[in-house]
Amino acid sequence: MYEYLTLISGRAHPTLAQEIADYLGIPLGRVALGNFPDGEISFQVNHNIRGRDVFLIQPTGPPVNDNLMELLIMIDACVRASAERITAVIPYFGYARQDRKDAGRVPITSKLVANLIVKAGANRVLTMDLHAAQIQGFFDIPVDHLYAAPILDDYFLSLGMDSDEIVIVSPDEGSIKRALQHVHRLGGRLAIVDKRRSSATETKQANLIGGPLDGKTALIFDDMISTGGSIVGAVQVARRHGARKIYVGATHPVLCGPAPSRLQEAGICEVVVANTLPLRPEQRIPNLRVVSVAPLLGEAIRRIHRNESVSNLFEN
Amino acid sequence: MYEYLTLISGRAHPTLAQEIADYLGIPLGRVALGNFPDGEISFQVNHNIRGRDVFLIQPTGPPVNDNLMELLIMIDACVRASAERITAVIPYFGYARQDRKDAGRVPITSKLVANLIVKAGANRVLTMDLHAAQIQGFFDIPVDHLYAAPILDDYFLSLGMDSDEIVIVSPDEGSIKRALQHVHRLGGRLAIVDKRRSSATETKQANLIGGPLDGKTALIFDDMISTGGSIVGAVQVARRHGARKIYVGATHPVLCGPAPSRLQEAGICEVVVANTLPLRPEQRIPNLRVVSVAPLLGEAIRRIHRNESVSNLFEN
Amino acid sequence: MYEYLTLISGRAHPTLAQEIADYLGIPLGRVALGNFPDGEISFQVNHNIRGRDVFLIQPTGPPVNDNLMELLIMIDACVRASAERITAVIPYFGYARQDRKDAGRVPITSKLVANLIVKAGANRVLTMDLHAAQIQGFFDIPVDHLYAAPILDDYFLSLGMDSDEIVIVSPDEGSIKRALQHVHRLGGRLAIVDKRRSSATETKQANLIGGPLDGKTALIFDDMISTGGSIVGAVQVARRHGARKIYVGATHPVLCGPAPSRLQEAGICEVVVANTLPLRPEQRIPNLRVVSVAPLLGEAIRRIHRNESVSNLFEN
Amino acid sequence: MYEYLTLISGRAHPTLAQEIADYLGIPLGRVALGNFPDGEISFQVNHNIRGRDVFLIQPTGPPVNDNLMELLIMIDACVRASAERITAVIPYFGYARQDRKDAGRVPITSKLVANLIVKAGANRVLTMDLHAAQIQGFFDIPVDHLYAAPILDDYFLSLGMDSDEIVIVSPDEGSIKRALQHVHRLGGRLAIVDKRRSSATETKQANLIGGPLDGKTALIFDDMISTGGSIVGAVQVARRHGARKIYVGATHPVLCGPAPSRLQEAGICEVVVANTLPLRPEQRIPNLRVVSVAPLLGEAIRRIHRNESVSNLFEN
Amino acid sequence: MYEYLTLISGRAHPTLAQEIADYLGIPLGRVALGNFPDGEISFQVNHNIRGRDVFLIQPTGPPVNDNLMELLIMIDACVRASAERITAVIPYFGYARQDRKDAGRVPITSKLVANLIVKAGANRVLTMDLHAAQIQGFFDIPVDHLYAAPILDDYFLSLGMDSDEIVIVSPDEGSIKRALQHVHRLGGRLAIVDKRRSSATETKQANLIGGPLDGKTALIFDDMISTGGSIVGAVQVARRHGARKIYVGATHPVLCGPAPSRLQEAGICEVVVANTLPLRPEQRIPNLRVVSVAPLLGEAIRRIHRNESVSNLFEN
Amino acid sequence: MYEYLTLISGRAHPTLAQEIADYLGIPLGRVALGNFPDGEISFQVNHNIRGRDVFLIQPTGPPVNDNLMELLIMIDACVRASAERITAVIPYFGYARQDRKDAGRVPITSKLVANLIVKAGANRVLTMDLHAAQIQGFFDIPVDHLYAAPILDDYFLSLGMDSDEIVIVSPDEGSIKRALQHVHRLGGRLAIVDKRRSSATETKQANLIGGPLDGKTALIFDDMISTGGSIVGAVQVARRHGARKIYVGATHPVLCGPAPSRLQEAGICEVVVANTLPLRPEQRIPNLRVVSVAPLLGEAIRRIHRNESVSNLFEN
Repeated sequence: MYEYLTLISGRAHPTLAQEIADYLGIPLGRVALGNFPDGEISFQVNHNIRGRDVFLIQPTGPPVNDNLMELLIMIDACVRASAERITAVIPYFGYARQDRKDAGRVPITSKLVANLIVKAGANRVLTMDLHAAQIQGFFDIPVDHLYAAPILDDYFLSLGMDSDEIVIVSPDEGSIKRALQHVHRLGGRLAIVDKRRSSATETKQANLIGGPLDGKTALIFDDMISTGGSIVGAVQVARRHGARKIYVGATHPVLCGPAPSRLQEAGICEVVVANTLPLRPEQRIPNLRVVSVAPLLGEAIRRIHRNESVSNLFEN
Repeated sequence: MYEYLTLISGRAHPTLAQEIADYLGIPLGRVALGNFPDGEISFQVNHNIRGRDVFLIQPTGPPVNDNLMELLIMIDACVRASAERITAVIPYFGYARQDRKDAGRVPITSKLVANLIVKAGANRVLTMDLHAAQIQGFFDIPVDHLYAAPILDDYFLSLGMDSDEIVIVSPDEGSIKRALQHVHRLGGRLAIVDKRRSSATETKQANLIGGPLDGKTALIFDDMISTGGSIVGAVQVARRHGARKIYVGATHPVLCGPAPSRLQEAGICEVVVANTLPLRPEQRIPNLRVVSVAPLLGEAIRRIHRNESVSNLFEN
Repeated sequence: MYEYLTLISGRAHPTLAQEIADYLGIPLGRVALGNFPDGEISFQVNHNIRGRDVFLIQPTGPPVNDNLMELLIMIDACVRASAERITAVIPYFGYARQDRKDAGRVPITSKLVANLIVKAGANRVLTMDLHAAQIQGFFDIPVDHLYAAPILDDYFLSLGMDSDEIVIVSPDEGSIKRALQHVHRLGGRLAIVDKRRSSATETKQANLIGGPLDGKTALIFDDMISTGGSIVGAVQVARRHGARKIYVGATHPVLCGPAPSRLQEAGICEVVVANTLPLRPEQRIPNLRVVSVAPLLGEAIRRIHRNESVSNLFEN
Repeated sequence: MYEYLTLISGRAHPTLAQEIADYLGIPLGRVALGNFPDGEISFQVNHNIRGRDVFLIQPTGPPVNDNLMELLIMIDACVRASAERITAVIPYFGYARQDRKDAGRVPITSKLVANLIVKAGANRVLTMDLHAAQIQGFFDIPVDHLYAAPILDDYFLSLGMDSDEIVIVSPDEGSIKRALQHVHRLGGRLAIVDKRRSSATETKQANLIGGPLDGKTALIFDDMISTGGSIVGAVQVARRHGARKIYVGATHPVLCGPAPSRLQEAGICEVVVANTLPLRPEQRIPNLRVVSVAPLLGEAIRRIHRNESVSNLFEN
Repeated sequence: MYEYLTLISGRAHPTLAQEIADYLGIPLGRVALGNFPDGEISFQVNHNIRGRDVFLIQPTGPPVNDNLMELLIMIDACVRASAERITAVIPYFGYARQDRKDAGRVPITSKLVANLIVKAGANRVLTMDLHAAQIQGFFDIPVDHLYAAPILDDYFLSLGMDSDEIVIVSPDEGSIKRALQHVHRLGGRLAIVDKRRSSATETKQANLIGGPLDGKTALIFDDMISTGGSIVGAVQVARRHGARKIYVGATHPVLCGPAPSRLQEAGICEVVVANTLPLRPEQRIPNLRVVSVAPLLGEAIRRIHRNESVSNLFEN
Repeated sequence: MYEYLTLISGRAHPTLAQEIADYLGIPLGRVALGNFPDGEISFQVNHNIRGRDVFLIQPTGPPVNDNLMELLIMIDACVRASAERITAVIPYFGYARQDRKDAGRVPITSKLVANLIVKAGANRVLTMDLHAAQIQGFFDIPVDHLYAAPILDDYFLSLGMDSDEIVIVSPDEGSIKRALQHVHRLGGRLAIVDKRRSSATETKQANLIGGPLDGKTALIFDDMISTGGSIVGAVQVARRHGARKIYVGATHPVLCGPAPSRLQEAGICEVVVANTLPLRPEQRIPNLRVVSVAPLLGEAIRRIHRNESVSNLFEN
């Protein structure tokens, strides 16, 4: 059934790759990945992949440049080894926030990265929760774009919350659309943290449009948590406006710099994230709950390989 | 000074092209543009353009396919006529809303159009108020992206409104960022039309976050007015929440279908738009005010041609 | 047998597409094709086409720009929906007459169109009676080029004409090669309308090389009938040189502008055309006879899909 | 004036290159061109060409593969040596007759050659009398296409022929358009050699449409003379139909195989050709007259280099 | 088993192609290959190859330009005839020695050739003993690179030499790595011909590092024998240093110019070469022994076609 | 004079960039280079570069992935900011040793990197002492390739060594060609460290071909020093064979892992390297002497910018 399907994991997130392989019931491809003494990446596939349908699993989270180059090098090797088709499985697509020129003489690194992946020889991309949906258009090869939000929501639903007590809080105006989709699945109403300030000199505080939250449970959603600044700011606003309990949900746990300590100390009931990125020990704070997207990715890979429809997996 | 600069207008908006030429103080290039009896477009440049820096002015508004193909054909002819550099000046970039896959098996027409423009041979693009800023990344050639908003705001400022009486109304959550930039320049505070509905069966009404507007002047901004449905909806919400006077501002006056009558009958003081698209007589309703972006486009062309910085023209 | 074959029709000629589908005994793919209020084309395939061998049927006759853009948009959607192979089936290839630079600073639109089709993502082209055979070389992807002439000739043969009474008339010197092929199949001899004039000032009349035609049946062939001017001119020359009965045969019934009335009033026994383009009611004149190329296209599609030889279908 | 203009000649036709250089009043670039003992071509430019506007002069006549590869190798070296712009000057474009698929599973070598020239790095092409004008469209880089016919006609005019005694004879139906252009410039009337045969079994003779030629001077024109079979056949037909004197004109003197002896023995007053190809001693038959296209090519190069209009040189 | 496998031979080396076909037990594809009278190559495949896995066998030895162009033309025809996959089988890759810029303003012809092969439409390359292994990287399509050295060594082993009496002689410092691989398989020790000279004016003689060879059997290996100068020089050095018997081994018998007579007169026991290139009668000197690489190429083709591992065939 | 010349330094080696700027007498371009909290690189040019000739200085030494991605991002930004021409100045070209497939299913990372640099938008490359000269052919854009060896030799000549006492030692067979070039400039004779071993089981020692070195000064040259293993091994062999004094010369001081301590403790008089890579404090061992290639790079940039010949700088 999977005679021609080959899963290969880079070093970015072997645990996720193994989970995907377990879902599909096939072993991961055997490869040798390492660094030469000067830090250059070495790579070799240890078995025949001619004519195979190869899926390379590599989220491009921190260290982003190493993970990205490793992905490109793996693609190059698979092309030269005569793989039939190469799908770059990128659960977290790094450099996604640099997706437009918002100032003069800056790069659009997100497009650059798309170009590099195509130039290296990838035939398809499978990714999740792109920071901007338009990044799909940065590719002319097929992109399958999955959403972790339903999985996060399933978890929240499993907690048995009453939809009347829920308020979905968007941490800024850019996340309102995402927040509305959670309202659609979880019920409750919407509130929006408004970070505008009246002037540059006076001390100001973020406002909450759609408040107060007295006695309510606030669920704050974002696509990723990077330094945690925006999320923790929203937590404070929600609490100040009366929220009784506060949960946070996000797909990508980048959790860089002060994020773990901030999230641990902010009085959040649970921070629910997907396993699109690996977690270092110091990132595994007590109130962090990780839900797995491996079955979703595995199922998408199965369907792509068998030419079955993936679009119902796309529902957000 | 402009020995090597050549401006050529397609048939989409010759008035704007002439205004740009007047700003620059040079004549438009002489071309023969027509249709064969079967509707195929014919084109010829009637003077030497070897080594010239050619700017082709053609917004791709309705009829979008004709205007786009005409642009591509003009580019092809200029390439083969040995132009040194070809800039596609596209004040309104059609097909921009189809910029991502929001459903299975749909095109990303906006990227397709970018690819066609590049394949035809354009070296650069000069455009205004793209529906999504990420469309810049659909190109790997340089894109200069201008904003009409400051020109619209200058007009509103010229009306002598008191910033205390102004409320900037975003017609939906996708336009909040744009609305905030108007707040920055015009003062006033922000309100957001919230189109969410509680259920599919009950009759519902759009809500206004940030209301009421009692006695205030509502300024509703969007990037374009297509059928006018969204704008007129926002006008009604604003009035219902007490707005005393209502203005509408938008860059691109697509104004298709019922838009002119809707806008005329909605009780709007003035609908202020830019001249990025031509207006047919029936679109020239009494309360429509058109501000010209020709000086902005002309200045950008001048600077591009002379390798001077354009980025301060980019300020939004 | 056709598990992986998918036929999709654009809006240019659904009747022909349905005939092809009937020939193959499979249904047309279900798609949603429409226009947004501003005229932009919307498209969606309503069923899974991953791994499918997709044939998009769309002649690019008038309105040529709409039909061409629709084809490009359909191709883009199929690429992004992971079709295995996309064949653009273009029974009439518009813009074909602009296939060379016959003056300075004009486009070669025919090559531009070929480039656009390839850039959009087509893997193959299936077309009929290109205005110039060299257009095949405008593509680097495989082009299968079919001829309708044998089908037209079969119809004429079915009329039971005696080959002795037939004269094949070429309406100009550019069609002599085509005329000779009809002589080869139908018998008879060749005559050529010679449009040269002795000077620019005197009134002149076209001459007939190979006349007179006294009592003969003249069969005038061209690849397409656009305004009908050239064909009707040849009809008049043939009649003036004594032709008793006159038939006209052409593959592509573009029939624009005055063509229907001209053809109806010229005293032609029958105008025989292929159904490579749809006919509007006013184009369906009484003496028009349409022969179907659907079986030929259908058979070609069948063979392409099954990797069988198509070249005997190419015989002209 | 020509500080940045560099002319480089391959080994195909150094005499022509030198004539062009003389016309322009500049020396040919110094290069080392040779063959390694195994026949591989070696090439080096012996002076700096950084930033130069390089014109590589190389008709691709016999031995076509050697001349073509030499051109490609010269282009490659100039690209890597940082030439600013590289124009392939190809007075005779070989492989031009293989410009379409007239049978199954054959190459379109003419397009292949165009692709190779572009891939090697040429930025422009300057050529003469392409076998089919559509070959211009095989390139997406600018092609300047010159015609030698006016130069041939100037020679014939210098002979003081009376236009009343001239008949322009097209050696086959494919050359009628060319013949008509000579009629336009030289006067006289047109006759066409008709090679059709009534059946496969009977012995047949070519016919002359537009005859007889009693006492006239026949001028037979073609774009090239290869084996001379077609031309000498037309000579015989013209004589049989009463021509008193017969001249032959053609741009490209390929003159392969039996062509020289055939042309010498056919009773032709003069065979007038251009110097787009070099002539070996055995090709220099007594009745051959060579007119030079070096001034035309030189003038075109001058104008291309200086961005002046070339299109009036295009008049055919 | 080989239903979709098609072998096609160019005219460079039909004997080798037939041997490969015999190994695989399938007939060679039927093609028509010829030259038009002016020397241009004509090509047609005489049977259906749609969807076939086509291998084109054509070493690009002398006459290199003819053989290379023939290969490119065959590729073009196969692409246009809808072959599923095209592998260029190039047992000897000509122009390989021009693989870098060792002087200013020279081409890198080897890269140019790689680009031409890819541009023509080849999907893969199968080659042997590239002059520099880096040429694999000149391609972005998969390259399978085979080595003839083990076959040469098998022959030498079959002669029953005692490894104690063997000295492997590298004819220059560039071949040391190759020589060491022969030491690995054949045993014996290494000696290196050192061609350095003390000054430009004094007469000098090549030195032998690792000598003397008294009573030993010298085996001199190189990747190709072109004029034989380097090899025969090494033979003389070896003899002067006491070698009793001298053998020469090389993969590619280019054998141009004086090579046959030099090799015949140099007192070499046997010159052992592979049949990667055809031999003309005058090249078939008495002491030349040809070993066949047809089984190796045939086996590689079989495995490539069936997606089996080829890498153990790569062992050098 | 340098109005349009812009030098921009990445973060890989700002000291070298400043030295180059000083040589040219112009300031470095003002840019903002940093990392977002998650490690993604941010970049902005702080002044207009439209129409400028931009040189981006960035050796891709350790950390190679960071330095390479930074280079690509800078290129992308400069393209989008309308630079006229972008030259990637890469004094040390990382990943160069992975330049061929020496095993099955490995990447050719060196070619991949070349492709990435071109895809990002570089127009030219300026580099030094590539590990294999063929890497020039991995690019189709112009590559200027400089050599540091003459600068190293100038230093050694300045030490006043007598050429009679010098022996140039090649640390392995791959460096013989380089060693010979040093012999050419410095005099002395050649010796080669021979690392072959007689069998896998016995303890073995590297041999010295061309020894003994009694009382001589050994100069060991390599293109780079990575872990120092090979160099220090050669030092030991040289000493064991009687060398009185030992110097080491190399272009690229990668000096990773144990290299500094090894080189410090090996009893080498001086390790002379170029400043193509920055040195961390722990790499600045007492016996390390750094010679600057900044004047060479600066002069090459000056000439490239002014279209002057660079080839005499290429002399090795």
